[in-house]
Amino acid sequence: MQENNKEEIEKMRDESRTETMRAVSSEIEKILYKPIPVLDHGFIRVIDYMGNDSSIVQAARVSYGVGTKRVQEDRGLINYLMRHGHTTPFEMCEIKLHVKLPIFVMRHWVRHRTANINEYSARYSVLSNEFYIPELEQIARQSETNKQGKSDVAMDTAKGQKVVDTLDDFSKSAYEKYSHMLDDLGLTRELARTILPVSVYTEMYWKIDLHNLLHFLKLRADSHAQYEIRCYANKILDIVKAWVPFTYDAFVNYRQNAVSVSRKCIELNKRMLKGKKITQENSGLSKGEWQEFLTAFDLRDLIS
Amino acid sequence: MQENNKEEIEKMRDESRTETMRAVSSEIEKILYKPIPVLDHGFIRVIDYMGNDSSIVQAARVSYGVGTKRVQEDRGLINYLMRHGHTTPFEMCEIKLHVKLPIFVMRHWVRHRTANINEYSARYSVLSNEFYIPELEQIARQSETNKQGKSDVAMDTAKGQKVVDTLDDFSKSAYEKYSHMLDDLGLTRELARTILPVSVYTEMYWKIDLHNLLHFLKLRADSHAQYEIRCYANKILDIVKAWVPFTYDAFVNYRQNAVSVSRKCIELNKRMLKGKKITQENSGLSKGEWQEFLTAFDLRDLIS
Amino acid sequence: MQENNKEEIEKMRDESRTETMRAVSSEIEKILYKPIPVLDHGFIRVIDYMGNDSSIVQAARVSYGVGTKRVQEDRGLINYLMRHGHTTPFEMCEIKLHVKLPIFVMRHWVRHRTANINEYSARYSVLSNEFYIPELEQIARQSETNKQGKSDVAMDTAKGQKVVDTLDDFSKSAYEKYSHMLDDLGLTRELARTILPVSVYTEMYWKIDLHNLLHFLKLRADSHAQYEIRCYANKILDIVKAWVPFTYDAFVNYRQNAVSVSRKCIELNKRMLKGKKITQENSGLSKGEWQEFLTAFDLRDLIS
Amino acid sequence: MQENNKEEIEKMRDESRTETMRAVSSEIEKILYKPIPVLDHGFIRVIDYMGNDSSIVQAARVSYGVGTKRVQEDRGLINYLMRHGHTTPFEMCEIKLHVKLPIFVMRHWVRHRTANINEYSARYSVLSNEFYIPELEQIARQSETNKQGKSDVAMDTAKGQKVVDTLDDFSKSAYEKYSHMLDDLGLTRELARTILPVSVYTEMYWKIDLHNLLHFLKLRADSHAQYEIRCYANKILDIVKAWVPFTYDAFVNYRQNAVSVSRKCIELNKRMLKGKKITQENSGLSKGEWQEFLTAFDLRDLIS
Repeated sequence: MQENNKEEIEKMRDESRTETMRAVSSEIEKILYKPIPVLDHGFIRVIDYMGNDSSIVQAARVSYGVGTKRVQEDRGLINYLMRHGHTTPFEMCEIKLHVKLPIFVMRHWVRHRTANINEYSARYSVLSNEFYIPELEQIARQSETNKQGKSDVAMDTAKGQKVVDTLDDFSKSAYEKYSHMLDDLGLTRELARTILPVSVYTEMYWKIDLHNLLHFLKLRADSHAQYEIRCYANKILDIVKAWVPFTYDAFVNYRQNAVSVSRKCIELNKRMLKGKKITQENSGLSKGEWQEFLTAFDLRDLIS
Repeated sequence: MQENNKEEIEKMRDESRTETMRAVSSEIEKILYKPIPVLDHGFIRVIDYMGNDSSIVQAARVSYGVGTKRVQEDRGLINYLMRHGHTTPFEMCEIKLHVKLPIFVMRHWVRHRTANINEYSARYSVLSNEFYIPELEQIARQSETNKQGKSDVAMDTAKGQKVVDTLDDFSKSAYEKYSHMLDDLGLTRELARTILPVSVYTEMYWKIDLHNLLHFLKLRADSHAQYEIRCYANKILDIVKAWVPFTYDAFVNYRQNAVSVSRKCIELNKRMLKGKKITQENSGLSKGEWQEFLTAFDLRDLIS
Repeated sequence: MQENNKEEIEKMRDESRTETMRAVSSEIEKILYKPIPVLDHGFIRVIDYMGNDSSIVQAARVSYGVGTKRVQEDRGLINYLMRHGHTTPFEMCEIKLHVKLPIFVMRHWVRHRTANINEYSARYSVLSNEFYIPELEQIARQSETNKQGKSDVAMDTAKGQKVVDTLDDFSKSAYEKYSHMLDDLGLTRELARTILPVSVYTEMYWKIDLHNLLHFLKLRADSHAQYEIRCYANKILDIVKAWVPFTYDAFVNYRQNAVSVSRKCIELNKRMLKGKKITQENSGLSKGEWQEFLTAFDLRDLIS
Repeated sequence: MQENNKEEIEKMRDESRTETMRAVSSEIEKILYKPIPVLDHGFIRVIDYMGNDSSIVQAARVSYGVGTKRVQEDRGLINYLMRHGHTTPFEMCEIKLHVKLPIFVMRHWVRHRTANINEYSARYSVLSNEFYIPELEQIARQSETNKQGKSDVAMDTAKGQKVVDTLDDFSKSAYEKYSHMLDDLGLTRELARTILPVSVYTEMYWKIDLHNLLHFLKLRADSHAQYEIRCYANKILDIVKAWVPFTYDAFVNYRQNAVSVSRKCIELNKRMLKGKKITQENSGLSKGEWQEFLTAFDLRDLIS
């Protein structure tokens, strides 16, 4: 795992700590600046943060004025805010991460627009020789479960190994040609890099508020997200847990594992509670919706 | 000057300081949580901040990679970024302010959309009896210089005093009726508050990144902004100076006092440098543009 | 109902129609430029729109490529996108409204940041003599149902009439003093307007994409929103129905009336379906959550 | 030049035009849906637009009220808005483009966050066999002028041809391996695509308001932008010219070719106008700033 700015960042950790009057989160201080490995060459590192669980509570109380102060204690208030979709107090916390990740993951990541980004520039600097090569087991697993794959083609170990070898050989070859065009043919960096596969690693500083971070995690730690970005999202969930533990619990309970259900499904459920037998045919739902209903209400073992 | 959350916030200041490994800005720590008075009842208070001048430099260097490290020292790099419109590194710093301000100022403020806001809610809480009444001298000054006023009507002290009295009496009367409708007639807060003038004070937590803050200051500390929001912007400039002194200098030198000049004006200027006599008639500029040209190039004393 | 730009806008309607190759929505063309009254002096008027239901489908198909074309017909695809939270295709439609509304409603409205706004300026122009005065029945209704009001004070007709009279008199008085300070004392518009209550009407052009508009409607057509902004939201719902009827239906079915339920509540519901008796005590839910559970699953008549 | 949705989009053009009461721009109607070629396989196509020059004027007049109507005619008002940085009226126009572009260009493009995007998904669909290969002359030109390249290595035609061949061979090979992993090894699309170089073409629908589009063009049609994105920006400039001709002229005159100059430089210039001899030494500017001053004021031939 290579890193830019490594020395400089290590120095920050080593330097004697400074006093501050700002809100502090003691658990996240322990992991500050430490790279947390992700995938084969990637990492996430917390560079800075602003606020803690109390900052959310404090901001919420501005909106409600003195009267409601201390009526609900902090954890209860955070749960309430999360359940009722009061999102602005969560915007009052901010985090800055240093992330190393393959370009194809970055391309998903950057679609979250409410964030600040400084990315390593392949126009100004030479990219390093690091490419994401999935692990053998992961290739098979993704190919099995992924509806977007050609599920009819079985992926055996021999084939998986061929994939690994192909990706590995091709990455090496790409980097050789990249270096050759730069060093021997005198090509500009901005054109030479066009030969590199989207599996090549890049780096960025990424800064985002807690509300938008939770939205990112809702989508990217979800089972529908591609495995590789999920690996990053899961590490960030651990960071959130250390940083704002009350908010983390509220998120997991009321948001990450929550489902949105339509009025129609609530009514079907109620008819069942009253003892009616419900089938797709008499439900008024399309086949797709019916399947989603069974999943959302976890009814597959009750309704055959 | 009344405040919500006052006790709670004072406690933060009094509590013994905590150690942190994060980037710290020593000068802004000194003013943390202290209300800085603005206008007759308003204030600005720094609640939290993220990053300092070095954070900007560090983020810029991610984009440029190891090669350029230490080529330029910090101040020089920040000047360079400011001059060349490289805005993303400035987004890597963030500040959170607690602001008390009249509603008509808030209505300008909130037009800056790239910020996070938690405002005191007049649906959930009762507003306090505080209204902005301009000072006598300010009324005269604004009425003289303001082209948007009725410049033909001279504003003498007697008239100014009538304005002050009118505003003062009317505010008191508004608050009485507000209280009466709430307390005696049983009206909801959300309807009772509709009687209050836009001079009534409200409060908010306001969080914004440094790049967008500088954009706010460019527009709102400008002489074209209304006096009242300029008072706030000028206090925030002092805060920025304490927080990120290199960035403050770069902003003042290369942005706040900079002017944008068209190619046509550059050419006119060059013809003058070559000794040509330029007038509005031979300039090819409209009358409005000609005046703007004289102002931008500070030529009023050279060209009669 | 006074209006700025009235003549100019009427002319647009009268002028012979122009041909276009763009996507057209025939139903919304019928109401283009026509002011739809809201509250006592307000209105909403559609000034322009971009796209229709087919534009959403077309954008969604870019993401999925040629393969999936015509697999699902348009309405089905729009339902699918709405159910699964695929929001970007809805961003491909845009609408521009001219809205006249009281300032206190505008202050809620403007909190939706992903929109473009041009508001009537009270620095450059004189505001007209129009203030929102709630109807007598509405005052009573809001005071009864609104938990944020002083529910212990009964609001009888006599008291309600006093509220109406107070607001009415005070508005008239405010406008007189506003005019007096402008015309007789020579005060600037920017200072004179500070005397006006937040019930005064203002106007704006408001442009927003369909995804963000639906988010606005989810929050502002909701029963928790203040009555006055709900009136505007309900009129906009009618406009959406005329503009993109498939999207409107999908929104109503899968979003507006949908509820977000936690994993814990899904499990409680399943235990009930299996015949277990559930009470707040054995549910593991707090009192607040228990009430929310009964509401979300519409169980108040099943569980006493 | 392959395209998705081609048939469907062609049909739109062929279908008889529809009447609309909306604002129409006659020149842009002529190019609606027609692909404008960019680079070797790319294109830009206008899918939809909202508003025209008059819409900007109309929105600006909402802010200024009835009083100022017709004081300035349309072109003059648009020039005024552009010169004075009044940006919100330009946000009242919107355009939707269908763009085919290499991934490395897309990666720059997507950094402009205030826009709506629907991109072709390489998780759901197979990418087509099209890669950007720069032209021979372009390779040499970029290598000469680009300070970011290794300027000491001369790029002769033989070397340039080697670059073209290398990129061409490697792209073909990449696509073969991509197809092989998909078709023969049964790999998922989401993993197979990681082998493809960033020169591969992708497609998107891109929707943006005119103000943010002009900001994009200011940065991306600039000589510091990479050649390839500049090609796209220049075609979009042509589109803007057809769509909103007054705004286009105002942009070119007052924004695209304008320079931002500091107070210090204005003072130096004034000293020169008064006959003083200015050199870097007596200017108080750093070497970098001095060079920028000579460039901004076009003084290289006057000051040796």
